[in-house]
Amino acid sequence: MSSNLQDFLSPNSIAIIGASKDPTKRGFRSIQTLLTETYPGQIFPINPKEKEILGLTCFPDLASVPHRIDLALVCTPAHTLPGVLNHCGEKGVKGAVILAGGFGEAGEEGQKLERETVEVARQYGLRLVGPNTSGIFNTHKSLNLVGFSDLRKGSLGILTQSGNMALSLVTEGFHNGHVGFSTYIGVGNEADIQFHEYLEYFGDDEHTQAVIAYVEGLKQGKAFLETARRVTQKKPVVLYKSGRTAAGQHAAKSHTGALAGDYAVSRDLMRQAGITVANQSDELLALAETLALLPTPASNRVAVLADGGGYATIAADALTERGLQLPVLSDETQQKLKAILPPAAALANPVDVAGGTDSNPEVFADCARAILQDENVDALLIIGLFGGYKLRFSATLEALENQTAARLGNLIDEFGKPVILQSLYAPLRPEALVILRQAGVPLHHSIETAVQCMTALTDYGHAKRRNQARLESGTASALPASREILATCHQEQRSSLLEHEAKELLKAYGISIPPYVLARTPEDLAQAGQQLGDVPLAMKVVSKDILHKSDAGGVKLNIRGEAGMKAAFAEILANSRAYAPDADIQGMLVAPMAEKGVEIIIGVTRDPQFGPIMMFGLGGIFVEVLKDVVFRALPLSPADAEEMLDEIKAKAILAGVRGASPADRRAIIDLMLRLSRICLAHPEIAEVDLNPVIVYPKGLAILDARMILAD
Amino acid sequence: MSSNLQDFLSPNSIAIIGASKDPTKRGFRSIQTLLTETYPGQIFPINPKEKEILGLTCFPDLASVPHRIDLALVCTPAHTLPGVLNHCGEKGVKGAVILAGGFGEAGEEGQKLERETVEVARQYGLRLVGPNTSGIFNTHKSLNLVGFSDLRKGSLGILTQSGNMALSLVTEGFHNGHVGFSTYIGVGNEADIQFHEYLEYFGDDEHTQAVIAYVEGLKQGKAFLETARRVTQKKPVVLYKSGRTAAGQHAAKSHTGALAGDYAVSRDLMRQAGITVANQSDELLALAETLALLPTPASNRVAVLADGGGYATIAADALTERGLQLPVLSDETQQKLKAILPPAAALANPVDVAGGTDSNPEVFADCARAILQDENVDALLIIGLFGGYKLRFSATLEALENQTAARLGNLIDEFGKPVILQSLYAPLRPEALVILRQAGVPLHHSIETAVQCMTALTDYGHAKRRNQARLESGTASALPASREILATCHQEQRSSLLEHEAKELLKAYGISIPPYVLARTPEDLAQAGQQLGDVPLAMKVVSKDILHKSDAGGVKLNIRGEAGMKAAFAEILANSRAYAPDADIQGMLVAPMAEKGVEIIIGVTRDPQFGPIMMFGLGGIFVEVLKDVVFRALPLSPADAEEMLDEIKAKAILAGVRGASPADRRAIIDLMLRLSRICLAHPEIAEVDLNPVIVYPKGLAILDARMILAD
Repeated sequence: MSSNLQDFLSPNSIAIIGASKDPTKRGFRSIQTLLTETYPGQIFPINPKEKEILGLTCFPDLASVPHRIDLALVCTPAHTLPGVLNHCGEKGVKGAVILAGGFGEAGEEGQKLERETVEVARQYGLRLVGPNTSGIFNTHKSLNLVGFSDLRKGSLGILTQSGNMALSLVTEGFHNGHVGFSTYIGVGNEADIQFHEYLEYFGDDEHTQAVIAYVEGLKQGKAFLETARRVTQKKPVVLYKSGRTAAGQHAAKSHTGALAGDYAVSRDLMRQAGITVANQSDELLALAETLALLPTPASNRVAVLADGGGYATIAADALTERGLQLPVLSDETQQKLKAILPPAAALANPVDVAGGTDSNPEVFADCARAILQDENVDALLIIGLFGGYKLRFSATLEALENQTAARLGNLIDEFGKPVILQSLYAPLRPEALVILRQAGVPLHHSIETAVQCMTALTDYGHAKRRNQARLESGTASALPASREILATCHQEQRSSLLEHEAKELLKAYGISIPPYVLARTPEDLAQAGQQLGDVPLAMKVVSKDILHKSDAGGVKLNIRGEAGMKAAFAEILANSRAYAPDADIQGMLVAPMAEKGVEIIIGVTRDPQFGPIMMFGLGGIFVEVLKDVVFRALPLSPADAEEMLDEIKAKAILAGVRGASPADRRAIIDLMLRLSRICLAHPEIAEVDLNPVIVYPKGLAILDARMILAD
Repeated sequence: MSSNLQDFLSPNSIAIIGASKDPTKRGFRSIQTLLTETYPGQIFPINPKEKEILGLTCFPDLASVPHRIDLALVCTPAHTLPGVLNHCGEKGVKGAVILAGGFGEAGEEGQKLERETVEVARQYGLRLVGPNTSGIFNTHKSLNLVGFSDLRKGSLGILTQSGNMALSLVTEGFHNGHVGFSTYIGVGNEADIQFHEYLEYFGDDEHTQAVIAYVEGLKQGKAFLETARRVTQKKPVVLYKSGRTAAGQHAAKSHTGALAGDYAVSRDLMRQAGITVANQSDELLALAETLALLPTPASNRVAVLADGGGYATIAADALTERGLQLPVLSDETQQKLKAILPPAAALANPVDVAGGTDSNPEVFADCARAILQDENVDALLIIGLFGGYKLRFSATLEALENQTAARLGNLIDEFGKPVILQSLYAPLRPEALVILRQAGVPLHHSIETAVQCMTALTDYGHAKRRNQARLESGTASALPASREILATCHQEQRSSLLEHEAKELLKAYGISIPPYVLARTPEDLAQAGQQLGDVPLAMKVVSKDILHKSDAGGVKLNIRGEAGMKAAFAEILANSRAYAPDADIQGMLVAPMAEKGVEIIIGVTRDPQFGPIMMFGLGGIFVEVLKDVVFRALPLSPADAEEMLDEIKAKAILAGVRGASPADRRAIIDLMLRLSRICLAHPEIAEVDLNPVIVYPKGLAILDARMILAD
């Protein structure tokens, strides 16, 4: 039975293995920090050569310690680890933080040592942080095992694959004067405890209101997404994914050797799981703080309250560009504002007070109250000079400004709507802004950052509502008909389904497929013609050995009549034999040519990090040239499918362009959901490609279906 | 003869008209500020009711002042202005800064007053800043007529349509501790002096190294672009354009009433003119400072030097995503780095020192020197902890860190290559970073901001080189053949050219047009068939009254043989008469069907702000749905045309997809340049639409040409 992370990440006793009297060593500095920051638990330095370190009794080994030990900080070099962990295990230590490098990141030798180390730990149910970690901290336990100075206690958790990222966040939080942290985990090599296990821990940690994560790559992406889906129902997770480009992946590899993967895939899947994916690393702290403090808005209708037309314009642009709405305020609200603002004020939204607060900043709170009362408004963004009235206009305004700050904080509770404030005076930290922040209003220096936070808050609220619906189980049951098809492939040791098999499998799950006939010989063509009618036909070669039919000259279009069919049969056969002389050709698939419509592609692959994922895009150049595609992890929910259709850049084409009727969204979504079920029921299907699928105002036609089997 | 702006923006004497003893009034506070900040020129308060203000003699009127006056600060209300300016004119005042609102922004009455006011000023050659301006400052003259406190003297000019934007910049500059300003102009209503005139002033101002501009809309966009093209050859202009969205434009209108226009057009045209267009308002100061300090790089090959793998990864991603290159460092450079860095260091680029600087930050300067020596490297970005070694590791590192800072600054001069530094300790302003900044190295807190600045610097260098080429004169001469065609249209009082006229006009300028025949009657068709050969033909109605030929059923495709042509002629005629019974139908244009190729659209319109502009995009949904188009102002240079082809998102299609050969870029560019010449030679052509143009691996075919004439 392994320990819970809680048991040792909030430890009552710590052993420092490799404790030292050398002030440059971690074995000294960690003890020093624990003492300085008055860690309330017991500290046991371990070093056979010392009797006492910094006034604490030093023990020769763990066995000699007359007390239970929750956590060991291991400061000794890599090669000592298996031995050290044996001692830890025998002592009943619950967790160990291993600082040393020279493991999985350091070639074959190191990888072997890492495996050995983990094996020892597993024998005892001992859990490992690292190796190759910068350490951990837990401010609510006064436990600082990483040695950051200026560490401010608070509610943001940090979970990162780069120790320096934590240093950046802690330093920024210290400097901005109001953000504090709960627990930090530098995951190091994740030899034992995986990223998602830490995330689970943060989800349960009462001191953590929001989690900041820095990820280069994930070894267990699927488990991570599942955990994130649960945790984000409880608290926000703000994540920066690096290694997005080839250059970045190269840099990431020389850093930890983690899997990087395709950024577009990670980003889409993480958002699906409810994670707030930061586009820039410098937004992490602002996003996490805002999401930790505020209620999520009911929808995306934002009001702007500004003391300056330039600010109002910038904010309105930035909100609109990010997809938020600026509703016109109700007549009633505008009347209320008119009564308290000068004639030059703009009242509709954005509201510009036009100097109406210069002599009395309290008017801000009056305006904010009127705006938040408006039913058209879900959230309020206040921008401009607030906090600096004292500095800019008159010292006599100080008291009024401070009162206003407190009132603005109260409005959030009163209306349950979020309020974000941007002030150009934020870096100067005037008292009014300190009060404002203490009253629970997030505070930003940049208009764009404030807007980005408002957007993230709106998105987070949306994602939470979307993910509240129970997700279909990941183990849909397979149907007899589909099992049979796959069993045949298995018997025949094929790595893919023939096109008609794939289509029959889809049919088994209630997916409609346009009529087709498998003509094994030219003699079958006459009957095929009768079955399909006198319409233009398409003919395609059927062979397990020819996957790319067009390349092989294995496709003919617009065929008419029996003579045409026979000629096409012969031509395709000849082409295919020329292309692949040994190909096992089963015949030809004959089907009516499809009417024109909107071409789409739906595919499923098994991602090495994230498991089965679905891709959606429009056909042709949209996928190939513009890469205008979206991804979701399976199982897919109806809301996921809806969003996929809305997230492609060329979505206007689905809605109908140049007078065309809209494509049948219901039919696309139904197909996606059934395909999700199929792929969950049949883990042996490694890849599916429905390409092209032609969508009509009513219904759709799957023209080609390809299924590849797992090895 | 009007005054030069220099004469009064750097004045030796000022009159304060409406001087006051009331400390809340601008007429008092401006004098107080001039005295406090020891303005070296003479100050003349003007107020008939006072004898003395703040120890200065107060004059009853301007005429009584026994001295020349360069500048008048007018603090009196709007209605007094015509009278006040008469007095200024008679006194020979060169410029007046008018604070009062209630002019052009305040309805019809105000507009009338504004016109009167300007008329009075023009009689005397007196120039006006405003009205409705927050004021101006010139720190190099200790002239602060806007009352910003904490104003730091320096080299950045501010030119803005929002006074609050200047307040934001000045406050940010004060807080970040190293950025200072030269001159600020709040342009107000631009009743007299226009935005581009101020820009010209900044271009000539020896104290200004870079200009920050905030623009909502421009009244004289064309003059602004022309000025910007010249000024950016001398110094960078960093501009934020607001009013980008409908919501923003609405906000902007309630602010100043300036023209907003289409953001994509403004942005493209401003970039063409060499302006650095900031995407976010919060980047303005960082961009301007960086561009003011550094030499521009020869090309876009950037090296990253980081003390942390996480930082290196983020920077590599951010640079790559913005189109910069991370070249692999030469073997020689890597050998040099290897000799001074620990074994775990990454040497290729990004370089991660992997702890190699922890005990000696000077290693940074050694690494930087080795990297800058590399011929593959145009610029260096240093990211991570520098400046904080003293804080993070040991106080004993202070001297070394300070020396390193100075050395890094020297490297810029030595190699003529830019160096930008990002440090997580930037906001704490440790001494090393103060030294670094004094040594001329721009300093950023955010990795993304540092990367954005590097990108802007690279783009600015590119734009300067591009724009150095002499621009073709805007007054190309018209050819007799084209004049004749346009004269016919004029005589016939037509507002557009017939398709064959437009094509003949293009031909006159050496643009090749696929063969066509104008068949005025069905009897002409036989000869048309002979001329064009036995190929599939297209037929289109020719009528000045039918602009949208397809809508009118006026187009038939894939016509074969004389009988087919006759049938098509009759059908189109019938359709057209049904569509527009009174249409004057001149006949049919018959032309061979075009081969398939890449469809593009080239258009020219006359923008109300910017004059003639060209649009380029791929045909069909690329323009209509994806809005994947680029714009340039005319005259177009060959480099402009090249960039237009490279800037569309779907540019891969021009390069050839799915095995297609590349489209003929030379032919497209040649067409664009000739079209530019045509539109400059013929200002009477208001709009041109070449749509579609089919581009082949060799050559192109203009299938339709539409030209609309100006009223």
